[in-house]
Amino acid sequence: MSKLLQDAVGEFSKLPGIGRRTALRLAMHLLKMERESVADMTQAIARFRNEVRYCAKCNNLSDEEICPICADPERDRTTVCVVEQVADVLSIENTHQYRGLYHVLGGVISPMQGIAPSDLKIDLLVDNIARGGIEEVILAVSTSVEGETTLFYIMNRLRQFPGLKVTSIARGIGFGDELEYVDELTITHALRNRRAVE
Amino acid sequence: MSKLLQDAVGEFSKLPGIGRRTALRLAMHLLKMERESVADMTQAIARFRNEVRYCAKCNNLSDEEICPICADPERDRTTVCVVEQVADVLSIENTHQYRGLYHVLGGVISPMQGIAPSDLKIDLLVDNIARGGIEEVILAVSTSVEGETTLFYIMNRLRQFPGLKVTSIARGIGFGDELEYVDELTITHALRNRRAVE
Repeated sequence: MSKLLQDAVGEFSKLPGIGRRTALRLAMHLLKMERESVADMTQAIARFRNEVRYCAKCNNLSDEEICPICADPERDRTTVCVVEQVADVLSIENTHQYRGLYHVLGGVISPMQGIAPSDLKIDLLVDNIARGGIEEVILAVSTSVEGETTLFYIMNRLRQFPGLKVTSIARGIGFGDELEYVDELTITHALRNRRAVE
Repeated sequence: MSKLLQDAVGEFSKLPGIGRRTALRLAMHLLKMERESVADMTQAIARFRNEVRYCAKCNNLSDEEICPICADPERDRTTVCVVEQVADVLSIENTHQYRGLYHVLGGVISPMQGIAPSDLKIDLLVDNIARGGIEEVILAVSTSVEGETTLFYIMNRLRQFPGLKVTSIARGIGFGDELEYVDELTITHALRNRRAVE
C-alpha cells in the first residue's frame, strides 16, 4: 500500500466516528477533488485550529477577543442563555427566535469524567452577572444527571443575585414526536407542566 | 458564528457522507487535538493529494512510478487480478492469500454515467499481456450490470491471446451469510456452481 495513502487514511481515522473503511473512502475522494479545493480544505482546518479563540465574555468560539454575538449592539443584553457547548448556540441561533446573549459552559459537571465546576466557565458567568445589566438567565443544559447537577449548582451560585430571574427551557413532547415512543420521564414532565389551550 | 469555524465546517461538509452536523462535530474535535496532530493531518492530506501517483504498470496508487506490488520480485508475475478500484486491491491484500499482480481499471463501463471502455485502463492491461509472461487473468469485478458488461468487454478483448487463461472469482454464499437473507440470483448461482464435498 502506498505510504502516502496509508498516512492520509491513518490521519482521517483519528477523527471521531471515522473507521478505516470510511477513511479510505474519504482519501479516495480527495483524488477526485481539484488540488486547489484540497488546499482550501487543509488551510481552513489549519487556520481554524490555530487561530480560533474563545470569547472573553461568553466562551463561545470567536475569531476576535469578543464574539460577533456579544459584540452585536442589536442583541438584548438583559438576557443570557446558558448552554453546554458551541453546537448548542448554533442550534438555538438557527431558530432565529432568540435575541439575547449566550454563555457557553464548555461541558457539564461530571464526577465520573473528572469534570468539576471549576473546569466550566461558571465563575465567568457569575462575574458577568455581578457586573450588572443582566435580568434573566435561561438555563438550557441537557436533561442528563450531569446536566441536572450542573443546573442545580448554577442555581445555587445565582442565589446571591436576588433580583435575577432564573428560568429553564421547557421540557415536553417534541413536535413530530409520537407519544408511543416518548420516554416516561418526558411524558410525566409534559403532563405536570400542561398549559391551558389558548 | 465564527468565520473560522464556518470555513472548517464548510470544508468538512464537502466530503462524501459528511453532513453539517458531523462536520461541526469533527471541527470541534480538532480543538481537542494537539496543534501538531492537526498539522500532521493537514500535511498528510495535502501530500497525498499532491504527490500520490498511479502505477504506470497496474494503475494502483503509488508513491513511485511503479507501485510496491509491481516492483516486488517475490510476487507471481504470471497472474494478474483485475479489479475496479484501489480499495479492492487492499481488500484482497488483507487476505494474505494472493501473491500475483493486480490491474486497477479505475471503474466499470457505465453508459448511464458516461463511462466508456476508453475511460478505463483496459488498453494498459492488454498491452501488459501482449508483452508476455502473464498466464492467467482473474477478473474480480462486481456483479452489477455494469460489472458484467465490463467483464464481457474485457473477455472479448482478451480473445486475441489464445493461450491465456481467463477466470472470474467465485460467486456464492458468503461465510456467515444466512441463506434466508441471500438474494435469489446469488442462491441460483451458488446452486449451479455446487461442488463435491471433499
